[in-house]
Amino acid sequence: MFDYIRNGTDIYKKSFCIIREEACLSHLPEDLATVVVRLIHACGMTDIVQDFEASATALVSGRQALKDGCPILCDSQMVANGITRKRLPAENPVICTLNEPEVPAIAQQINNTRSAAAMELWRSQLQGSVVVIGNAPTALFRLLEILDETTDRPAVILGFPVGFVGAIESKQALAENSRNVPFMTLHGRRGGSAIAAAAVNAIAQESEL
Amino acid sequence: MFDYIRNGTDIYKKSFCIIREEACLSHLPEDLATVVVRLIHACGMTDIVQDFEASATALVSGRQALKDGCPILCDSQMVANGITRKRLPAENPVICTLNEPEVPAIAQQINNTRSAAAMELWRSQLQGSVVVIGNAPTALFRLLEILDETTDRPAVILGFPVGFVGAIESKQALAENSRNVPFMTLHGRRGGSAIAAAAVNAIAQESEL
Repeated sequence: MFDYIRNGTDIYKKSFCIIREEACLSHLPEDLATVVVRLIHACGMTDIVQDFEASATALVSGRQALKDGCPILCDSQMVANGITRKRLPAENPVICTLNEPEVPAIAQQINNTRSAAAMELWRSQLQGSVVVIGNAPTALFRLLEILDETTDRPAVILGFPVGFVGAIESKQALAENSRNVPFMTLHGRRGGSAIAAAAVNAIAQESEL
Repeated sequence: MFDYIRNGTDIYKKSFCIIREEACLSHLPEDLATVVVRLIHACGMTDIVQDFEASATALVSGRQALKDGCPILCDSQMVANGITRKRLPAENPVICTLNEPEVPAIAQQINNTRSAAAMELWRSQLQGSVVVIGNAPTALFRLLEILDETTDRPAVILGFPVGFVGAIESKQALAENSRNVPFMTLHGRRGGSAIAAAAVNAIAQESEL
């Protein structure tokens, strides 16, 4: 038998305690710091703080939208699976359109990736939604293009695509002009579904545990 | 319209090209380097190479097991969702027992987390399986404890738990004594479901794309 902490709540508490000891959070308002603590918890890296950026209203806007029952639109199944349903305040629908049967045809038609094509199926639900992108830079680029074509606006964009091609650029494009939508992002190559889902989980419920 | 690469295959190719330019892979055999490239691709960080460790036979053993139709046992739904089904050589079952109805009762009984308790339901399928841990350190600790209680052996353990409490220690325990099971791991706090799923995807299919 190994000697390790076997109680889930104790593990959470100790993790958050270590993170608050090690991470530089003092420049952030307390409620945003709580979000960043959860992002750090999801990836094991305290230095992501330096790459984090959020609109002043992102947290409040996202939290209110969730309380009002808005849908959560996710770019990948991994993101959707990472969202803790019992934290959601209004049994909010968690939607991922990536595997809808019409997506490959749309991708061919708009000459873009399947991830970008899946955004087209969000249009009717975009207004007031929480948008979460944790995988594909092309999804974030396409979302911004769609926002230039419509006046519908999500309540918040959680933009955390990851990788070597387009991740930096798409997150920079979001931060430079988020089309009047409050946003959170992690600049650079890092990101991913666990961090993106953690952002939703942090916004969904004020308490850490 | 933004200027970005919209073709999925081109994005993959360019990503892998950038990774191979930037990452120090020369000390690794070519087939293991291909695995590490995919792990890097999943997280956006080329410096994980330094924390990667694998048994000499891990790749061959895992690949053969998958060809033989073995199940893939995952500690979380996010890992299960990250496995690309069309890469699997034998329509291998992808199993996550975390949400089985008996898990909370088992957790209480063994005085451990739900993630650790879910391992108990793996016992009958452990022999010859591909085991993937991408979330919970307690799951990896409990797996090693179970291997001390049985002679059944997985074909490979892909041990990638993440975080601040037990992640370093459980991966160290795996590397120090993997109970005669070939393994791959990423030492330190980093890990997670995307990296763990990427390891399966890399083992499942020789070609990168």
